[in-house]
Amino acid sequence: MTDLTLRILGISGSLRARSYNTAALRAAAELLPADARMEFAEIGDLPPYNEDVKEKGFPPPAARLREQIRSADALLIVTPEYNYSVPGVLKNAIDWASRPPDQPFNEKPIAIMGASPGILGSARAQYHLRQCFIYLNAHILNKPEVMISQAPSRFDENGTLRDEPTRELIRQLLAALVDWTRRLRH
Amino acid sequence: MTDLTLRILGISGSLRARSYNTAALRAAAELLPADARMEFAEIGDLPPYNEDVKEKGFPPPAARLREQIRSADALLIVTPEYNYSVPGVLKNAIDWASRPPDQPFNEKPIAIMGASPGILGSARAQYHLRQCFIYLNAHILNKPEVMISQAPSRFDENGTLRDEPTRELIRQLLAALVDWTRRLRH
Amino acid sequence: MTDLTLRILGISGSLRARSYNTAALRAAAELLPADARMEFAEIGDLPPYNEDVKEKGFPPPAARLREQIRSADALLIVTPEYNYSVPGVLKNAIDWASRPPDQPFNEKPIAIMGASPGILGSARAQYHLRQCFIYLNAHILNKPEVMISQAPSRFDENGTLRDEPTRELIRQLLAALVDWTRRLRH
Amino acid sequence: MTDLTLRILGISGSLRARSYNTAALRAAAELLPADARMEFAEIGDLPPYNEDVKEKGFPPPAARLREQIRSADALLIVTPEYNYSVPGVLKNAIDWASRPPDQPFNEKPIAIMGASPGILGSARAQYHLRQCFIYLNAHILNKPEVMISQAPSRFDENGTLRDEPTRELIRQLLAALVDWTRRLRH
Repeated sequence: MTDLTLRILGISGSLRARSYNTAALRAAAELLPADARMEFAEIGDLPPYNEDVKEKGFPPPAARLREQIRSADALLIVTPEYNYSVPGVLKNAIDWASRPPDQPFNEKPIAIMGASPGILGSARAQYHLRQCFIYLNAHILNKPEVMISQAPSRFDENGTLRDEPTRELIRQLLAALVDWTRRLRH
Repeated sequence: MTDLTLRILGISGSLRARSYNTAALRAAAELLPADARMEFAEIGDLPPYNEDVKEKGFPPPAARLREQIRSADALLIVTPEYNYSVPGVLKNAIDWASRPPDQPFNEKPIAIMGASPGILGSARAQYHLRQCFIYLNAHILNKPEVMISQAPSRFDENGTLRDEPTRELIRQLLAALVDWTRRLRH
Repeated sequence: MTDLTLRILGISGSLRARSYNTAALRAAAELLPADARMEFAEIGDLPPYNEDVKEKGFPPPAARLREQIRSADALLIVTPEYNYSVPGVLKNAIDWASRPPDQPFNEKPIAIMGASPGILGSARAQYHLRQCFIYLNAHILNKPEVMISQAPSRFDENGTLRDEPTRELIRQLLAALVDWTRRLRH
Repeated sequence: MTDLTLRILGISGSLRARSYNTAALRAAAELLPADARMEFAEIGDLPPYNEDVKEKGFPPPAARLREQIRSADALLIVTPEYNYSVPGVLKNAIDWASRPPDQPFNEKPIAIMGASPGILGSARAQYHLRQCFIYLNAHILNKPEVMISQAPSRFDENGTLRDEPTRELIRQLLAALVDWTRRLRH
C-alpha cells in the first residue's frame, strides 16, 4: 500500500448479523482493485437524529462516522430496501453525518449497491439514496448498477457471495469507482 | 364523542422540541372536523431496526406504535425533509411498525403533510413516503397536498401556527381525510 | 353484458406493432372478470402537446382520448420503460388528456402494469406514472404490482402471453381493479 | 471565440411560443461565461417515438438532434413540469436521441433548470429527468438547482427574465456547468 492507495469507506445499511447486504460488502472488500483498500463504518450505535441533541455536540458514534467519511477517498454504500426505500437506520446515519458546520459528503465519489430477496434487488432504495446525494453534492457513480436480486440464492450458508456474475459485477463497480475517484481529483 | 368518531393517529417525523413539523401536528389537532379526534405517536424511543432484535420480539416502543396504528381509523403523518428524503427517524418507525406477522398499515387511510424552512416544504420527502405506502398497501390521500414552505415565517415564537392560509389548508386536508376514511369503509 | 358491466379503457404506452406491452394489454382483455369489458385507446396519432395548439381546441385524437377516458369506469395503463421513465409518447397522451377545463382522470380508478426485456419489468416507469396521478387525483391500485421482466421469454412468436404465472397475476390485477372501482363508487 | 470555447446545446421542453421555460433558456444564452456559447435544439417536429419507424432509419429531426447532442460539449435542459413529471414532448426527444447504435448522451455533462407557475418550480420534473440520465450515463450537475417558481412574476410581457436573483442563479448554474465540463475532460 502506498500513498496512492485509495481508501474506500464501506457502509452497510443493515444491522442484521447475517445480512446479505453486509455479506455483499464483505465480498466487495475482497474484489477491490490493487490500488484500493476498504475500511468499514459502524452505524448501529447511532442514536436517533435529534437536532436538540446535536446542538450539544455530535455523539461519539456520529463524530466517528463523520471523521471516517471525511478521511475516505470514496464511499461504497450497500443498501437493503425496506418498504420500497432506504432503511431508516441507514438514512439516520446519513442524517447525522451530513449536518453542518462541515458536510463530509460534499464532493465525495460514491458507489451504491444493494441486495434483496425479491426481483428488484433494492432498486427503489437505491434511487431514493441517489436523490439524497444531490443535496449533499456527492458524485454518485452511474454505472454499473448492482442490484442483487433473489439474494438467498447467491450466497452460501456462511454468507459468502458465491454467484460469479454478481462477483464480477461488484468487481466492475469497484474498478469504476476507483477510476471515477481519480478522474474527479484532477 | 360517539362511536362514530374517527380516531386519527398523528405522527411527527421530527424529535426536536421546537420542531415546525410537530407544531404543525399540534395545529392539526385543533383543526379537526367535529367527528374526529387525534392521538399522538411517540417514535423517539424506538431502537434502530434490526431483524435479529425483532426475532426475539418487538421492543415495547415498537409494539406500542404498532398497536396505536392498528387501532387508529386513519393516520396523519407530518414529515420534515432531511437530505431530500424522509428523516431516518421516521423511516425507522415505519420499518418497525410494518414488520410481519400482521402489518398494521394495510388498508389504512393516510394523509401526509410537512414543513421545511425552504421553498419546497418537504415535497421530496412526501413523495418518497408515498412510495413506501404502495408496498404497505395504505391508501394515501391525493389532495390537498400540504407543503409548508418557509416554515419559520408561519409560526410564532411559541410554535403556534399563525398563518391562516396554512391553517385553512390543514383544515381541508383533515376534512378530506375523514371523508376518504368513511368512503373506503363501505 | 349488463348495465353493471364495468368498462375499462386499456392504454398501451408503446407504438411498436410487436410491442410486449401491447401484447400484455391484449392478454389482459382476455383475462377480465365476467363483469367487465375492455376498450382500447389509440395514442399514436396525437400531435406533440403544445398549449398554443390546445388554445385553438383539442385536436380530434386528443378530444377522442379525453372522451374515452371520461366514459370509462376505470383505466388499465400498460407502460414500457424508456430511459428509466415513462415513454414520451405515453406521457404526451396524458398531457393532452389532462388539460382543463375538465380533467377526465379525476377520481378515476387506475391499474398500472408493464413489461421490459430486463429485470425490473418497467418498475421505474411505473413509479413515475404513479406520481403523475397524484396531481391528477386518480386512484391508483396499490397491488398487485405487475412488472413483467424478461418479456421476450414470456410471449410466443405471435405475441401471445404464454407465461401462466404472469397471466394469473394479470387476472388478479384486473379482479382487484374491478373491486377497487366498485368500492370507490359507494 | 476560440477552439477552447465550450459549445452548450440548449433544449427547452416546452413548445409554446410564450413559454417561460423557453424564455429562461433565452436568458441563459445571455448569461454564459465568456468561454462558452449556446446553440438551440428544436424538438417540436419529432414524430412520436416508434421503434418500427426507427428501424427504417432515424427521421431527419431525430438525426439532427442526435448530431447536435453529439457535437455539443455540454447540455442545458430547461424543463417545464406537466402532471408532476417531464413533458411528454421532452421525454419523446430524449427517447429518440438516446437510441442505439451510439448513444449521444453518454458521458455528457448536463445542467437542468426549469420554471413553473406554482411554488415548486418544476422540481418534480427535474428529479425524474435526473433518473433518466443515470441510465444514459450523463453527468448531471448537482448544484445549483434552478427551480423558477411563480414564473409569471419573474418575466416581463416580452418574455424577458427580469428577476435579478434568478438571473444570478442561472449565471452560477452556467459557470458551474462550464467548470464541471472542463473537470470531467481531464
